[in-house]
Amino acid sequence: MNTTQLTVLVIKYLREAKKEALQTALEELHPYDMAELYRALPEKHHYKFLSFLASKQIADLLMELEQELQMEVLQKLGIEKSSKVMDVMDNDDLADMLSEISEEKLEEYLSAMQKDESTTVQQLMSYAPETAGGIMTNEFVWIQDYYSVREAVDKFKTFAELTRNIYYLYVIDENKKLVGVVSYRDLLLADMNEKIADIMFSRVISVPIDIDQEEVAQLIQRYDFLAVPVVDDDNRLKGIVTVDDIIDVFIEEANEDIEKLSASGKSIDFATKATTASFRRLPWLVLLLFIGLITGSILDGFEQTLEQVVALIFFMPMIAGMTGNTGTQSLAVVVRGLVTNDFEKNTILKLVWRELKVGIIIGITCGILVFLVATIWQSLIFGFVVGFSLFVTLIIGTMAGTIIPLVLYKIGFDPAVASGPLITTLNDIFSLLIYFGIATSLLHLLI
Amino acid sequence: MNTTQLTVLVIKYLREAKKEALQTALEELHPYDMAELYRALPEKHHYKFLSFLASKQIADLLMELEQELQMEVLQKLGIEKSSKVMDVMDNDDLADMLSEISEEKLEEYLSAMQKDESTTVQQLMSYAPETAGGIMTNEFVWIQDYYSVREAVDKFKTFAELTRNIYYLYVIDENKKLVGVVSYRDLLLADMNEKIADIMFSRVISVPIDIDQEEVAQLIQRYDFLAVPVVDDDNRLKGIVTVDDIIDVFIEEANEDIEKLSASGKSIDFATKATTASFRRLPWLVLLLFIGLITGSILDGFEQTLEQVVALIFFMPMIAGMTGNTGTQSLAVVVRGLVTNDFEKNTILKLVWRELKVGIIIGITCGILVFLVATIWQSLIFGFVVGFSLFVTLIIGTMAGTIIPLVLYKIGFDPAVASGPLITTLNDIFSLLIYFGIATSLLHLLI
Repeated sequence: MNTTQLTVLVIKYLREAKKEALQTALEELHPYDMAELYRALPEKHHYKFLSFLASKQIADLLMELEQELQMEVLQKLGIEKSSKVMDVMDNDDLADMLSEISEEKLEEYLSAMQKDESTTVQQLMSYAPETAGGIMTNEFVWIQDYYSVREAVDKFKTFAELTRNIYYLYVIDENKKLVGVVSYRDLLLADMNEKIADIMFSRVISVPIDIDQEEVAQLIQRYDFLAVPVVDDDNRLKGIVTVDDIIDVFIEEANEDIEKLSASGKSIDFATKATTASFRRLPWLVLLLFIGLITGSILDGFEQTLEQVVALIFFMPMIAGMTGNTGTQSLAVVVRGLVTNDFEKNTILKLVWRELKVGIIIGITCGILVFLVATIWQSLIFGFVVGFSLFVTLIIGTMAGTIIPLVLYKIGFDPAVASGPLITTLNDIFSLLIYFGIATSLLHLLI
Repeated sequence: MNTTQLTVLVIKYLREAKKEALQTALEELHPYDMAELYRALPEKHHYKFLSFLASKQIADLLMELEQELQMEVLQKLGIEKSSKVMDVMDNDDLADMLSEISEEKLEEYLSAMQKDESTTVQQLMSYAPETAGGIMTNEFVWIQDYYSVREAVDKFKTFAELTRNIYYLYVIDENKKLVGVVSYRDLLLADMNEKIADIMFSRVISVPIDIDQEEVAQLIQRYDFLAVPVVDDDNRLKGIVTVDDIIDVFIEEANEDIEKLSASGKSIDFATKATTASFRRLPWLVLLLFIGLITGSILDGFEQTLEQVVALIFFMPMIAGMTGNTGTQSLAVVVRGLVTNDFEKNTILKLVWRELKVGIIIGITCGILVFLVATIWQSLIFGFVVGFSLFVTLIIGTMAGTIIPLVLYKIGFDPAVASGPLITTLNDIFSLLIYFGIATSLLHLLI
């Protein structure tokens, strides 16, 4: 049954007030599909639909809805019912949702929630976003190293609800410090009387609360973990980051790279309003505009050359464009390479040396092609000026596209900020200076 | 202990032939760290190091090494020992490694392996790469729906080794068709006498063998799965794709997007040779070069205008550049948006309408800025020509950057192929035509 058929069925049950039939239709429905269903349901049915759901189901729904719809659901539920739902939501998703709510409303919800639930989620909201603390959950089951497997499984069963989205059980000592980890698989394979301390994996890898989310993602990717424990300075277990949240981090970070490489500005998706999107894109564009005007003054300085050999203009956009293109290619290679490679002297020197060779090969190939075209079009000297200029600018453009992001990375800036358009604009300037510089010095031969 | 200290220790044990001490040092070492250790170890120690390892440890090591080092290890081990290691490797990694080996050597390894191991991995190698079949493993434990929980756990214990990297147990009926799934957590929480059919999740989501890996990744991301079962046309269970392989898919696909957006050509990383990198980048560059030469002939057509108002040249690179920049921004938004959004008529129309408004806002803002600069620099009329041209070209550039990738997507091409440099070059042409067209029609006012 697809979403449309399900929606029709649900509307039917809502109209006929058949709560049990509705629940059967929703049985085993994944939260993602529940959210799709909610979006497909006409708004007039939303209130009734929510009233037929249990708190846990609404909690699952909320975790998959976008912010606008989350607010709509909370508003339809009212403070009381909302807080009951919040009490059973996974803390990391709850913290994300609450961070988007206004101050006064937030106070109301928090005071209506159960005391310990409220305290725990506020603790989570105190951590910086895009860090381990910002993406972890701080509600989890832990076991002591002196437990037997039987005791561990019993505790696991008692707190079953809290184990829904974690895949390992972390082991702590009497000071609450992290000492090991066991997986559900380990528990299934072990003998009931064995001690946890004997079957646990003690070389457990953990991360500090304030580490960047990109580094947590890299860790999970390298070690094929399903989750990573988060500890404070005293190695006390504070939370867990799970692989499903990490996948979202990967997508986020990839989007960010592309946004910066194209100077798109932060987070513009299909739903962003026109004015918002414009204001996010304009700063870069205006900056590039003023840098671009520099090219105007360069050309002004070469006015004499231009007036004498107007044909030079014909090749100008092509030379500037090609220089920008090769710079963009190099930039992309560097930015993505830095995601998986470490910034080591050897690696970097080999890379720069490789890019220089690439610049030369590309420069020779394109330079010769353009030389032939320009010679046929105008004259041999002309062909030489254009071809040689392209050769030089392509090498410089390639090197600029390689070195600028590396330097930015070394001094602590995000290399993707170097962005396609910035490198392109800088290469415009370089190429103009070189092209007209060469043309001017050979002017007597061109006239 | 970091890699360097561990390396020193390992070399010491190798020299003193202390195999047990070495094994203790390597205890609980993650495969990723084992690979780091191997890379850090001087090559002269490699053979002895490998001889001190068990087959399973070498298998883990191979799964994390890059292709060059994998081949080195296999060569040092020889056919016999290699095939023993292959017998215990995870099938999906083994298939990947074997697909890089030459025909004759492959035959030798396959015949030296255990018969059923050899058959199973060859089955896996027959599937197309970058599909579910290409990234799945086909070695897994399954249970029947009529088992009791006790019987399921017993089977699980018997085949413990095969369950190392899967996180769910898939349930099949007597015809080997997929009917449900249970997690280890479900088994731990259940009563030993319950029937699997009663505790399993029957609305299990699966994928066909030939589905694109991007779609599998999208599924795992949406539903927060740890794994997805792969079935044939008769719904018979054929393999499992796990979340750790999916993370690698996300990184691969993000890299591809960036490579195409910047016309970098396929897979250039830090290690690629200069000649290879050049040949992957040149096709695009040469194509762009010839498209760029079109700008030359456009300018040739406007030669008269150029000779009369040379100052028009000054703003040319800036206008062309800005048009390219806004086009690149729009392109990035569309390409990333298509990853998570569905291509629906409503969404698309709203997007195009939004981009038109953005283009107008950006056009007005930048147009006014440039009008002021150009007026101060030259004259009011001049300022109008330049400002108005920029206004028009920015709108057209924004729309081009939005519509071209959407059209490409609709007719079945990868929108990222539209790539930054292509849109930039096309926008160069548009902007030149518009700029000089307007200037020529107002020429009498400018002279």
